[in-house]
Amino acid sequence: MNPTLEIFSQGEEVVTGQTVDTNAAWLSERVVDMGFTVTRHTAVGDKLDDLVALLKEISSRADCCICTGGLGPTSDDLTAEAVAKAFGLPLEFDAVAFEQIQRFFTLRNRVMPESNRKQAMFPKGAVRIDNAWGTAPGFSLQAGRCWFAFVPGVPTEMRHLFLESIQPTLASRFLLRPDKLITLRTFGLGESAIQQRISMIEIPPQVRLGFRAGPDDVQTKLLFPQGYPETILTSLVGQVAAELGDNVYAIDGLGQASGDLVFTVDQLMTAGKHTLAVVETASQGLLAAKCIGKDWLLETRYEQSLQKLCRKLTVTDNTNDLPATAQAIANEIHKTGTADFVLVQLYSGDKSTFHDKDQAIILYNTLLTKDGFFQTTGSVAGPIERKQNQAALLALDLLRRYLQQKELCN
Amino acid sequence: MNPTLEIFSQGEEVVTGQTVDTNAAWLSERVVDMGFTVTRHTAVGDKLDDLVALLKEISSRADCCICTGGLGPTSDDLTAEAVAKAFGLPLEFDAVAFEQIQRFFTLRNRVMPESNRKQAMFPKGAVRIDNAWGTAPGFSLQAGRCWFAFVPGVPTEMRHLFLESIQPTLASRFLLRPDKLITLRTFGLGESAIQQRISMIEIPPQVRLGFRAGPDDVQTKLLFPQGYPETILTSLVGQVAAELGDNVYAIDGLGQASGDLVFTVDQLMTAGKHTLAVVETASQGLLAAKCIGKDWLLETRYEQSLQKLCRKLTVTDNTNDLPATAQAIANEIHKTGTADFVLVQLYSGDKSTFHDKDQAIILYNTLLTKDGFFQTTGSVAGPIERKQNQAALLALDLLRRYLQQKELCN
Repeated sequence: MNPTLEIFSQGEEVVTGQTVDTNAAWLSERVVDMGFTVTRHTAVGDKLDDLVALLKEISSRADCCICTGGLGPTSDDLTAEAVAKAFGLPLEFDAVAFEQIQRFFTLRNRVMPESNRKQAMFPKGAVRIDNAWGTAPGFSLQAGRCWFAFVPGVPTEMRHLFLESIQPTLASRFLLRPDKLITLRTFGLGESAIQQRISMIEIPPQVRLGFRAGPDDVQTKLLFPQGYPETILTSLVGQVAAELGDNVYAIDGLGQASGDLVFTVDQLMTAGKHTLAVVETASQGLLAAKCIGKDWLLETRYEQSLQKLCRKLTVTDNTNDLPATAQAIANEIHKTGTADFVLVQLYSGDKSTFHDKDQAIILYNTLLTKDGFFQTTGSVAGPIERKQNQAALLALDLLRRYLQQKELCN
Repeated sequence: MNPTLEIFSQGEEVVTGQTVDTNAAWLSERVVDMGFTVTRHTAVGDKLDDLVALLKEISSRADCCICTGGLGPTSDDLTAEAVAKAFGLPLEFDAVAFEQIQRFFTLRNRVMPESNRKQAMFPKGAVRIDNAWGTAPGFSLQAGRCWFAFVPGVPTEMRHLFLESIQPTLASRFLLRPDKLITLRTFGLGESAIQQRISMIEIPPQVRLGFRAGPDDVQTKLLFPQGYPETILTSLVGQVAAELGDNVYAIDGLGQASGDLVFTVDQLMTAGKHTLAVVETASQGLLAAKCIGKDWLLETRYEQSLQKLCRKLTVTDNTNDLPATAQAIANEIHKTGTADFVLVQLYSGDKSTFHDKDQAIILYNTLLTKDGFFQTTGSVAGPIERKQNQAALLALDLLRRYLQQKELCN
């Protein structure tokens, strides 16, 4: 049995919906990876009695609890007081914490307000968690069955404190047997198409299969229990990957760094020392924007009007044959530029089609390479922002497929 | 005293952090606006005993509870069973619900799997909530002190059912006295600068002041109790707005539709029948991408290299005087194009400055109008994606300031 863990978020901004609690999901993903079973998330506002009652509940039912928020200097920051009251521990002044808080202000040429003194008061027996990224130190303590860690709610501070202090402590305090999660990231197949393709593969009952469809990809997840034989794991992942074919652009969890589609394209372009020129239409700048900071992107242009684009490049705008028009555009840009590859995105569909969420535009992507032209066609419906995003990704995905195919053949 | 409400989310994907629970925040914002006090959010996984215990807890401490998730056809969808067990109510077959579920499949030319029959079983006494957007109907019932509504966890379905069925029911079942929230949205001032500017204004103790700093703006929030005198409210909002000056681009809650910076620019451009040409550098397509679907954006180009840009336009690239270079570029584009306004974004800082999160780039925005040139300069540090986003917003904000100023003078 894995140890159980609860996440507890404090703050009126969370319960009133002013802030989406991303901390709970971020922490849960990490502790699940470590081998905890997360049993509950709870968020409450700034009411002392609610906090006290909740702390008592958790101390009797969970092995571990990570609490975010309520450590600030103002009167609605009640965490330390609630812990003191819930577990009958007096608040004590921590001189080291106080010095750290003062130093934070001194370094910024500011005078420490008197209210910040409060942040140096911890329940008796608590262990301080130093915070170099903000004014509020955290603290940890054992109460009843549960080991509690209290950290600020500001996501950057919380993440630093978790990774640098709490995670190592958890690893040494608890006997953890983490499961192994393998995620196949695909672009070009819907969730139900994926389910159909892999339905013939026999998944052993100890392995959990899941799916997650987002705006940028669909993820197929295989969760293997700790100690699962490596050869069977590799063979099963290989079978799933084979069924999904070249729609798979990355596999997470096999030890190599991976990320989104742009990450994969960046790795392939950098490794091959390639360079790229891009012409986008439907994505209106978003394709280039997604590639911010990538040195291989040499030339970029976008144009809503195919006529204007063709006039500028002195190319015939044959709207009845967009693939041929795209090739002509690519040739023209290749002639005048220095990039190895030219990626051209055109689409058919008028303005009302583009705006109407119930109508689809047809995208024609063309990639010019020294191995010749490669082309894909795709249809995208939905709100205008979805069409824009899918248009950018479909074009990048053509480049990704070409580069991965090339890599396989070398 | 406002009635209390809890949000309860069911699903392993929530507690394991695979999904960020945006439903809880979305629902909370709406019910707070209606006049509820949200006291707690809880998320639990697919374990029957946990669900039963939680439902019992909530039925004794809250006036209302909205539950999302757990209504699907599979064995881990346990909500109806948990409700039946928690409150001693047998599950009963609902023929109307069953017909609706069957129709969903028939309309899609699919055969209903046997497992979906389960979705037509409700605890005795529950009232069905019809769902035209998916297979799972919801249901509501009173248990102990608490009125519960159970809806699917899929955000689109949940939102439809809330707005069309749950919200009207809440309004008739509960005596609600909603507070009034006014939000001043600003661009160009940090949270602490705002606090300093308005520190001289006396905020009455019944009015709650809050702040929310995001990547796209800073919001100053004033929460007025129900029945607060309209004249005092208007005067207080006016005082705050005056201190924040033309950094305020929109005020939410005064009855007019409002949105983000692009929304405000869109309204002003459309109302004035203006048209725009844009040249962007640091934002690399993101400025244009944010304006997807806006008809007033006639011409767009971006270029990472100032030298290349100037060569194309046969303009002298004076890197020592970027404002003058920007004016020359704007003039050239205005001569050859048809847009009323030309917005040019240039920046100083080399590649390493742009990539280094600890270094700042300096942005020079220039707007050509028939009233002459307007220019702003801004410095942005942080990760490359932040520089990109701020660059796009700073340029749009120059246009917004010009348009709002113009509107004031008319």
